[in-house]
Order: sequence, then C-alpha cells, then structure tokens
Amino acid sequence: MALISPSRRLRRTPFSDGVEAAGVSAYTVYNRMLLPTVFRSVEEDYHHLKSAVQVWDVACERQVELRGPDAARLMQMLTPRDLRGMLPGRCFYVPIVDETGGMLNDPVAVKLAEDRWWISIADSDLMLWVKGIANGYRLDVLVDEPDVSPLAVQGPKADELMARVFGDAVRDVRFFRFGHFEFQGRDLVVARSGYSKQGGFEIYVEGSDIGMPLWHALMEAGRDLDVRAGCPNGIERVEAGLLSYGNDMTDDNTPHECGLGRFCDTQTAIGCIGRDALLRVAKEGPVQQVRAIEIAGDPVPRCDRVWPLMAGARQVGQVTSAAWSPDFGVNVAIGMVRMTHWDPGTPLQLHGPDGMQEAIVREGFWL
Amino acid sequence: MALISPSRRLRRTPFSDGVEAAGVSAYTVYNRMLLPTVFRSVEEDYHHLKSAVQVWDVACERQVELRGPDAARLMQMLTPRDLRGMLPGRCFYVPIVDETGGMLNDPVAVKLAEDRWWISIADSDLMLWVKGIANGYRLDVLVDEPDVSPLAVQGPKADELMARVFGDAVRDVRFFRFGHFEFQGRDLVVARSGYSKQGGFEIYVEGSDIGMPLWHALMEAGRDLDVRAGCPNGIERVEAGLLSYGNDMTDDNTPHECGLGRFCDTQTAIGCIGRDALLRVAKEGPVQQVRAIEIAGDPVPRCDRVWPLMAGARQVGQVTSAAWSPDFGVNVAIGMVRMTHWDPGTPLQLHGPDGMQEAIVREGFWL
Repeated sequence: MALISPSRRLRRTPFSDGVEAAGVSAYTVYNRMLLPTVFRSVEEDYHHLKSAVQVWDVACERQVELRGPDAARLMQMLTPRDLRGMLPGRCFYVPIVDETGGMLNDPVAVKLAEDRWWISIADSDLMLWVKGIANGYRLDVLVDEPDVSPLAVQGPKADELMARVFGDAVRDVRFFRFGHFEFQGRDLVVARSGYSKQGGFEIYVEGSDIGMPLWHALMEAGRDLDVRAGCPNGIERVEAGLLSYGNDMTDDNTPHECGLGRFCDTQTAIGCIGRDALLRVAKEGPVQQVRAIEIAGDPVPRCDRVWPLMAGARQVGQVTSAAWSPDFGVNVAIGMVRMTHWDPGTPLQLHGPDGMQEAIVREGFWL
Repeated sequence: MALISPSRRLRRTPFSDGVEAAGVSAYTVYNRMLLPTVFRSVEEDYHHLKSAVQVWDVACERQVELRGPDAARLMQMLTPRDLRGMLPGRCFYVPIVDETGGMLNDPVAVKLAEDRWWISIADSDLMLWVKGIANGYRLDVLVDEPDVSPLAVQGPKADELMARVFGDAVRDVRFFRFGHFEFQGRDLVVARSGYSKQGGFEIYVEGSDIGMPLWHALMEAGRDLDVRAGCPNGIERVEAGLLSYGNDMTDDNTPHECGLGRFCDTQTAIGCIGRDALLRVAKEGPVQQVRAIEIAGDPVPRCDRVWPLMAGARQVGQVTSAAWSPDFGVNVAIGMVRMTHWDPGTPLQLHGPDGMQEAIVREGFWL
C-alpha cells in the first residue's frame, strides 16, 4: 500500500488528534475528510469491535442542514421515501435520487424540527445537489454544512460506556431515534445508530471545540471496558451487508437495484424529483440487484476495483466489496447480480485478482 | 504518514497500472479518484520536472459534459466570466460560483462546439451542482461524466516528446488552445495547458481502453529524454502560485479573494447565478486576498491544516499551502491575508506546527 499525502484539502476532524495519538495506521478519504480505516490491523480491530467497545471518528459523515419554511418540501423532493409521517426526533435512512432515479447518496435524515433537518451524508458532495435544487426551484430554505461532526460509539459494551458519560437515560434511546443529552453544558443530539451491526450510538458533536474533551471523556470512562479508538471495519460491515455508497452502488444504480426498494414509496412520495423514473422501475422491477456472495478458496485481498462475476463466458454481475471473515471462515462479499443468476445457491465464478475463484449467491448476509 | 486503504470508492484510473509499475509511493484523493503525489521523493520529482519531461496521471480532473441547446446558457449561469466571445477550440479558466459568489470549483472550460462543453474540474463534485441547476431551471441539456481522463505531459522537453507521438503539428498549439490529434486511429483533444509552470500539454484521453497504450507510447518515445511518471509537484506549484481548490480556497471565498477578479466580468456576464452577490464584491473589493508568503527559518512540513498568520496578538491571515523550495532556498507559501496587512513587505508571524516563524508578504510568486 502507498502512503497518503497530507494536505488541507483532505480535511482533519475535531478528533484527529485523538486518532493519531491512538496510533492510526491507515486512512481513507470520505467527503474530502480523513476517515481512519485501520488501527492495529483490520482483523484485530474486528475482533475487538465484536467483543468490547470502540470510539469512531466518523466526522466525515458531514451534515447538510436544511432550515426554513421549505425545508420539509425540499427534503421530500430529494427522496422517494414518504416522509409525511416522520416526527421530529426520528432518523430515517433515505435513498437520494436524481431525476433518472440514480442514487446520489444514501444518507440518514435527522428531523430536528419541521423546519430544520440534517442529512448525514455518505461519500458524495450532496450539498451541491441540494443547493442547486433549492436555487433552481426558488425554495425558501437555507442549505449549508454546520460545524457538526459525528462520533460513533460501537460494540456490545456501547450502552454501558455511553451511560457512564451521558447518564442512564441514554439506554432508553430506541433504534434510529435520538435524544438530547448534555456534555459539559452543551446540548448534543445522540442517536442509536451506526455503521456496524454490533449496536451503539452516534453523537452529533456540535462545535469542534468539544470534540477532544468528549473523546477523552469516553476513553477515560471506558478504561475498564477496554475501550479503544476504532473505525468502520472492512470485514464486519461486509458480513453485515452494510452497503457503502461509491463501493457497492453509484449514480448508475437505482434504489431497487441496491435492495432499497422498501424505502421507495413511489406512489405517495409526491414531489420527489426522481419519482417518474422510479415508478417505471417499481413496475418492472430491477434487472440486477445487490446480493451476498460467498467466495471459496484463499483469502481475497481488498477489493479496489470491480471484480466480474461470470457464468461460463458471460459476465452476470460484479463484486464490489470483499474480505476474509475470521469468524465465518470464508470470503464474504457484496455484489450486484443479474436476475438470471441472483437466486440463492447459484454458482458463479469470480474473476478476481488472483485468477478464477468459485463463488455462490447466498440467501442473505452473515449477521 | 499513514497508509491509504484501497477500495473501489477511491477510483483507479486508466493509467493506474502504469503509475504502480513506475513505483508510486504516495497518493492523495481527488474527486474520489487516486492522484499520485510522490514517486521518488517530492524533491527529486521536483528537480526532474524542471529539467526533463514527465507524464502525469491527472484522470482525477474529471469532465462534466454539457450537451444540448441550452449548454452555453447553462455554462454562463455557472461562471461570472463572460463567455460570449469564446470560440470553439478555446479553453477558459472559469471560477464557478454559487448564488452568494462563493467558489464551488475553479475548472477549465473546454468549448468543443456551441452545444457541447467539457468542464475539467478541480476537487468538488461539481456535476451535482450543475445537474441541480439544470433540473431546477428546466434546461434542455444533458449533463454527465464521460469516459475522458486527462493525461498531462509537463516539463521543458514536453514539446519534443509530444511531437514524437502526435507529430510536429502539436508544437503549434497555443497556450490554452486545443487541437484534435490522432493516436491509434482515435481522435483526441490535446490542449496546451497543465498544472505546472514548466510548460506542456494535457491530453483528454477519450476511452479508458487506450489509456495504457498511450502511456506506453509516451514512455517509449521519451526514453532518451529521461521521461518519467510524475505528478503535480507540491513545491513547484506553490513557487508558481498555482492555487488548489480545497487548499487555498473553499466555498467561503469569492473569486476576488482568490485573486481571480480578472476572470469576473460581473457587468456583462448576464445570467450568472452569483452575479448579484459579485456585483457587490466588485464594487467594494475583497477584504482579504491570496498572497505569496515567504516563511523564514527551517523547512516547514506539509501544510495539513490552516496555519494562522499573526500581527502581534491579532490573526490577520492564514497559510494554506507551503513547502521548502530547494531552488529558492526558502519556504514558499500561499496564504490569505487581510487588507490591513497584505502590502508587499509586510512582516508577519506564522503560527506553524513548530512554533512561531517569521514570514513576509511578497509582491508575487517565485516563477
């Protein structure tokens, strides 16, 4: 692997000092910001995540804030998910689509109030699309990126650690809900969510200045829980089938191809820009779709480009994320497969970096 | 420095195989794509760039293509530069601004025909803004990212190398003009441009499949010219005062603050979305502006965050890019300085990573 060159353009986060002190060994870049990917090793980080608790610098999940009388209308223009029943205090996973139904992002929308929303984005400059739409449609709304940086606490001991810092009431926050909790006199949004299947929270740290104080408080409070700095884990998230925008889907894909059809209320999401295109897709169904893929044989390296999935001489899909799973003893992978070959149990051949390997379409992911 | 983790999300380019074979040692990420930053060392690459010729994988300068009857109208909506006199065959450096006059990108616009343009972008997902505007204003235009990857040939021997591959006619291409040249039966746009002051060309490689054949042809033809794989150089570009979007300017800055006022024809660029805001700026002038900054003392490390520029206890600016220059024997830097302290010769103190260092505002850049 090559090194990453530092520059202001690859933005540091309010937690970067803590991440460096904890001995980060590799990064990726996400929304033009540093996102740690490895501390001790991907495998060691993986076992620790599944058994203890980790604090993750996910400041790169930037927020796009919508504020003003047209905020809710704009939010509905962006997504085919029907938001009419959504109450303040709720988080919704929302596919964001363009006028052709192509995925532009798959963020979590946080409804703070009727006229104030955060869109907690995956890796694309979604703010530019939102600002362009707001401008073009002359909407009465302010769109900007506030000084809000999510810090995730993930792992089976996350509840215990969070309760020590925020009080026992944090245990009562339900999945994809959020509450307001105080830290050093500051009111923070804390949601039960996160990019792992180990359970945990995301703290929307408003104000960079309290980033490191909160980091230290969590590390201090969790010493006997073996709390460590961690990060989204390249093995665990594939086992769990957590898709990654830019890896497992791009603007070439519709939500239905990504298995997100259940978040598309195409009949009722009036105002959604991509609705016409998605009505068509919803009627005919997608011709390819995301699937869990098991790859036989030796451990595969990191998937740095699409790996074709073949049925004989014909390409019928591609793998976009893959990892050797120590717990399951197989290569776990996420792929996109054409409908002729997407049934569980279908044998395929992976054209990987080390030649051909046998692969099979699974019923579901591992977790 | 930490490592960079491979993933499909950090897109490879049509030239990545060549870059790896040439022994790339560090990358940055630019438009969610790999951009090499170091081969042998930044210093060795620097001396070689100034004395020989290099081939640069700058595929990360993605193109936003505008096609259709409203292409020219949309292009003018994006920029305060008056494009009415621009003929096909020309390249214009165009600040792109939002409705407040904030910089969204500083690309080169390539006018292929009245109804067909490429915007060769710096590091932001400009396509999302352009698509949002096109959709909101109901423009009759197609906006997408074509399979076009620039390959730059830079250095004093660039003309000689290019003539060997494309024929002597390429020598006649004037600065910021382009011509059509053939390679292996394919018609390619070749412009005299590039992100160095050493002279050279950018080849808009249309069709990923001819990326490596062209790479090899250039390497083969230039063997006796000591051609090497190279990349935009962190020292040379600061000496030359070539700004970097995301480093030296962001959407907080107007073009006037970036010293790009000469590209703002605010009176005549009718239709530009940010025109009203920029009329105000043009009238009052900016209160801070980009300046060349010389930093005394020991070589500074890479600038990975803003470094405050102080006048006594008061912050009057910031440095955003800096490097030790072997040729000039000083630290060269790019900063943004308030008007009270921006006159040439003004002494300032840099609050850098190693404490305070003396700095001075220069009349201009080094090249």
